[in-house]
Amino acid sequence: MKQIFLLCCLCFLAGTALAQATWIWYPGDYEIWLSNRMQNRRTDRGSFFPIFWKMDSHYPLMDFHKDVVLSQAEEVHIYAEGTYNVKLDGQPFEGTPAVITVPAGRHRINVKVFSQGTVPAIYVKGATIVSDSSWLSTYEDKEWIDETGKTSDITATKWLHAGCWNFNDPAILPSAFTLPTQVMAAVKNENGLVDFGKETFGYIHLKGIKGKGKITLYYGESKEEAMSDKGAVNVDWLSFEKDVNQDSTLPASKAFRYVRMVTSPGIQVDDVSMLYEYANVNEPGSFKCSDDEINRIYEVAKYTFHLNTREFFIDGIKRDRWVWSGDAYQSYLMNYYLFFDKGTVLRTMYALRGKDPVTSHINTIMDYTFYWFLGVYDYYMYTGDRSFIKEIYSRMQPLMDYCLSRRNKDGLMEGQVGDWVFIDWADGLSKKGPLSFEQLLFCRSLETMSLCADIAGNQQDAEKYKLLAAAIKEQLFRIYWNEQKQALVHSTINDHVTRYANMFAIFFDYFNAAQKETVRHSVLLNDSIQHITTPYMRFYELEALCALHEQSYVLKEMKNYWGGMLQLGATTFWEEFDPHKSGAAHYAMYGREFGKSLCHAWGASPIYLLGKYYLGVKPTAPGYATYAVEPALGGLQWMEGTVPTPDGNISVHIGQKEMKISTAGGKGTLRFSSSIKPVCKTANIQQTKDKWYEMTMEPNTTYVINYQSVK
Amino acid sequence: MKQIFLLCCLCFLAGTALAQATWIWYPGDYEIWLSNRMQNRRTDRGSFFPIFWKMDSHYPLMDFHKDVVLSQAEEVHIYAEGTYNVKLDGQPFEGTPAVITVPAGRHRINVKVFSQGTVPAIYVKGATIVSDSSWLSTYEDKEWIDETGKTSDITATKWLHAGCWNFNDPAILPSAFTLPTQVMAAVKNENGLVDFGKETFGYIHLKGIKGKGKITLYYGESKEEAMSDKGAVNVDWLSFEKDVNQDSTLPASKAFRYVRMVTSPGIQVDDVSMLYEYANVNEPGSFKCSDDEINRIYEVAKYTFHLNTREFFIDGIKRDRWVWSGDAYQSYLMNYYLFFDKGTVLRTMYALRGKDPVTSHINTIMDYTFYWFLGVYDYYMYTGDRSFIKEIYSRMQPLMDYCLSRRNKDGLMEGQVGDWVFIDWADGLSKKGPLSFEQLLFCRSLETMSLCADIAGNQQDAEKYKLLAAAIKEQLFRIYWNEQKQALVHSTINDHVTRYANMFAIFFDYFNAAQKETVRHSVLLNDSIQHITTPYMRFYELEALCALHEQSYVLKEMKNYWGGMLQLGATTFWEEFDPHKSGAAHYAMYGREFGKSLCHAWGASPIYLLGKYYLGVKPTAPGYATYAVEPALGGLQWMEGTVPTPDGNISVHIGQKEMKISTAGGKGTLRFSSSIKPVCKTANIQQTKDKWYEMTMEPNTTYVINYQSVK
Repeated sequence: MKQIFLLCCLCFLAGTALAQATWIWYPGDYEIWLSNRMQNRRTDRGSFFPIFWKMDSHYPLMDFHKDVVLSQAEEVHIYAEGTYNVKLDGQPFEGTPAVITVPAGRHRINVKVFSQGTVPAIYVKGATIVSDSSWLSTYEDKEWIDETGKTSDITATKWLHAGCWNFNDPAILPSAFTLPTQVMAAVKNENGLVDFGKETFGYIHLKGIKGKGKITLYYGESKEEAMSDKGAVNVDWLSFEKDVNQDSTLPASKAFRYVRMVTSPGIQVDDVSMLYEYANVNEPGSFKCSDDEINRIYEVAKYTFHLNTREFFIDGIKRDRWVWSGDAYQSYLMNYYLFFDKGTVLRTMYALRGKDPVTSHINTIMDYTFYWFLGVYDYYMYTGDRSFIKEIYSRMQPLMDYCLSRRNKDGLMEGQVGDWVFIDWADGLSKKGPLSFEQLLFCRSLETMSLCADIAGNQQDAEKYKLLAAAIKEQLFRIYWNEQKQALVHSTINDHVTRYANMFAIFFDYFNAAQKETVRHSVLLNDSIQHITTPYMRFYELEALCALHEQSYVLKEMKNYWGGMLQLGATTFWEEFDPHKSGAAHYAMYGREFGKSLCHAWGASPIYLLGKYYLGVKPTAPGYATYAVEPALGGLQWMEGTVPTPDGNISVHIGQKEMKISTAGGKGTLRFSSSIKPVCKTANIQQTKDKWYEMTMEPNTTYVINYQSVK
Repeated sequence: MKQIFLLCCLCFLAGTALAQATWIWYPGDYEIWLSNRMQNRRTDRGSFFPIFWKMDSHYPLMDFHKDVVLSQAEEVHIYAEGTYNVKLDGQPFEGTPAVITVPAGRHRINVKVFSQGTVPAIYVKGATIVSDSSWLSTYEDKEWIDETGKTSDITATKWLHAGCWNFNDPAILPSAFTLPTQVMAAVKNENGLVDFGKETFGYIHLKGIKGKGKITLYYGESKEEAMSDKGAVNVDWLSFEKDVNQDSTLPASKAFRYVRMVTSPGIQVDDVSMLYEYANVNEPGSFKCSDDEINRIYEVAKYTFHLNTREFFIDGIKRDRWVWSGDAYQSYLMNYYLFFDKGTVLRTMYALRGKDPVTSHINTIMDYTFYWFLGVYDYYMYTGDRSFIKEIYSRMQPLMDYCLSRRNKDGLMEGQVGDWVFIDWADGLSKKGPLSFEQLLFCRSLETMSLCADIAGNQQDAEKYKLLAAAIKEQLFRIYWNEQKQALVHSTINDHVTRYANMFAIFFDYFNAAQKETVRHSVLLNDSIQHITTPYMRFYELEALCALHEQSYVLKEMKNYWGGMLQLGATTFWEEFDPHKSGAAHYAMYGREFGKSLCHAWGASPIYLLGKYYLGVKPTAPGYATYAVEPALGGLQWMEGTVPTPDGNISVHIGQKEMKISTAGGKGTLRFSSSIKPVCKTANIQQTKDKWYEMTMEPNTTYVINYQSVK
């Protein structure tokens, strides 16, 4: 017996070394709380500028518990953000204990926390007992003392696995979290106009303020904006009423490249620098090629995306600094090819979803609700994280119920009072009646529901949503497909064709092969169809073209559009770019002189396009269990890069005559064209059609293929 | 034209003098926030002891607006709890203005506030523009800048009239609210046992603490509890590690009559007193009679009720200090006969209702959900406040939907997993299957829904709920009425009879006259039917007996039960009283030595019984538009008292030969028995049957009736 106990003990000790205690909370609650804080930091001319949809809150009262089996007693330290109590096997400890002793044997530890202004959270650390996502949490423990004086737990209580991030220091409360910062000096300072050399984000630091008086800071993403007293969107008015001699870091972060400082007589400042604030994410993805302009585009896209990847994926660092589902959806996709940071995706999805009841579309926009579902779908495809799907499914249902309750008499999604049907910023775009684009997103959302219901073990729902999706798809083609125009028309009102539904139907694989071919010409390459001007929808247009193997065309478009911004001196990519404009006219939008955001996440789409459609790497089963590599040089001489997966990075180098691919976990399929019969010494290559070949790749292996690029 | 403007101006100036600015918030949000704070103040042996159901929160982001028409420009001062911005006609002011100027003409003022930890609230004060409940509020303004650069309000936004209380000082933020306190000295202090002479509530104040060491305070509602180191439910362990010489008021309020102070060597305290904390409510109701014991019972009931009337109506001041719907429901009824404080009723109902989604019955108890509906019904009957009904109706619907979604296959309410079917603390009471008592409460709740739907202008709902109520009533009698037993049986399992459904069916008027008569004997006065031991259900039992004109019997019961507690030295009424127990055994409950609450709101029911069934005053139409006075001496020689109504107090003096009644607003009907033909000089008296008479009473009139009390 003693021997066995000793083994057990060693086993527990072995576990100890690995057990990392971390702050835990109810899943989604911290994310919602943090997004409230972040989304309320925007100002405009010094005026607080919050979001205009419902803001939710964490549950202020939370119960955490864990069942443990100990081979020997252990001391457990307890930290909490909020007022708390601790129970062992249902019996409360007196007072608010910082340390408890848990005896050997099987036990249940409960910690119950109340915190109104911050999120109830705990940090528990013993030799083997540590707080982590294996703890369960509920806002409704339904525990009472029954007639016999016994405390009962009702099994109906829904316990969810606790949420956490990487807050592993008990001394730092979750509410104290801030992104890291580092000091950055200005590049130039001429007559009070301070230039940081490129678009950046953070806190202005004034060094050596002397005297008394007023200091005004005009921020500009462009020099013109910083020079405009009335036009600068971000302004700080500071006043020093007593003689000072100090340094000062401004409390509010801003987006800017330029800062113009105007001081009243009697006050002076020695130097202006900044604290650059950033998210500390890894960067396993990469891309490099034979075209220097493309390389510069990729680097600037990376920097643009870095700046907009913060506590959450936001739309733009100057404006709106908010979490928008449509913008975030593109960020998720870029993220899978650059950071592969699951945490930022999940935080963003929790923040967007908010809490029940659903009283509005996400961000009030119908399409943005659907992008949220699509985000869940893609998250699962790229990460294979089934546990999150099981967790989030109960939050998917009410959102879909909301959609289903707002169908029109034909079962189609149609804008109702209070709904914003957005699609895109485009002149004269009709939002009337049920639109093909919305049905298409709705259909994919229903497919996502069916998939996730299945993972969550709800077969009845899975079947229900499958039937609903099939019915919408049938209607989509019956109602909107126009044989004469060989395209999906925009609405039920007339036969007007727009690009939106057509391009999505390509990469959703809703079109058959024949339809894809005709739509390429009838819509995508058809100049008489209204052009897309926002990088937001260019993202999908270029994706659709890539899916149709138009990489050469898309490469030229990239060089024109993103290269065009670089030629104008852009250091990050813009919310919108119209090459026909000139000078400061580029900075105007929404009827305001400097209304445009010059650092917008959706401007960074080359990250996604180059990774998915040039390097050609994409999962074909959840979490890259199987995946495809379908390289397309699109006119480049060579390219190389890495694509992160849950099980390591896939690296690809493609030249004219040689391909070198190092695989990660999962089973890969390489598909490529070659004008000669290709050879790989370590694998069999199958021909699939004229000049097209296919090769199966094993996990964690490097393959060299000799071939000849098809001109 | 000038003349007209002058008139307008005078009119506005006239309004000015009356306009009272007050802090406003989203209706219900402050109430929920405050109840969170209050319900988390309970401790047990120093351990935080919160509620075990879902705790909701305010909306952290709130938009307030008001449309104004000004004859001349005015300066408006703006205060907010939270970060805010101000817009005039959709245009934001720069920064966060404390004062704005609103020009003459028609304008819309919006103030948008973010506050995570406290409730977003504003206080606005100009010459004519003041914040009050005429302002509208929403958590979801759905306002955006459309493609044309124009700001739009979506009409779908639900704007509710702002909530407020009496917070009229801009310098005191709503979150700073506390109940008033006053210093109270102890009555006795012997060897560290401090006696305050009666049950009380507040903060212990230690005067002249000198030295260093530990001070332990053992609180007791009874002397025995205070003397018990291990048994006292409330304990404070204080530690002074440095030499002190100070006074100290303890931060946490407690319920107690006795406090035993134990000091370690090296520390001493000059004096122990307290800050008595109370709700500052009016007390228009009164009762006095020829029986001194009844008068003492009434006074102690009043004090008991006072102590439990705080920010909200709570169950008991030592335990649980929570808002329980079943307890609160009785407090509402007592309140109508003592304080007539609408505010405390509304705050309590908002706090109990919480926010959507409904995930559980109120307090997790099925019956408590129904009492909440009944509370709305009674509130309307006693106050006639239609505007609240219109406001609350949208919160009634989801709660009733929750109930309807949990009916069994026969459409009856039956406990499901996670539901607590409570009814009463009673040995062996079956909670299995659908119970007659729950159907009865369900039926009345559905009737309430129908009534309120009608007031809210929703005729379709009114009809729907009316039909549902009728169906449940039909089932109630078809399934549970037992002809042989002449009673409603308890459950569908066997023909066992309990008192619960039978007594409620009397004062709900669900029984016909014949049934009432038989049930009086087959159930209420039948000793073989399990007796009720809790004052909670005694409330309804005695009410039912009173409704059957058993006032003489009830008077004796009151004297036995409540008089019994007084004889044991009670200074407030207890959670439960069993005259067969003796000594400290009275203080035990829930398996704990001092588990019983000795100051429990439901112990104060004589307030209600004496007002409604002895003085006999009750509304017969909403808000006392019509009302009845049906005095019943029940063996008393005389009685007198006042009953508050929305339009003044009704005062009643009843002797053996003379009745004197002063009416309030509304039309009254006096019904009484007399062994002689009664005479009133100022009104006509009609005989209705042998020895029974009726008289119509006009508003605000005093009537003197000569009659002879029937022996």
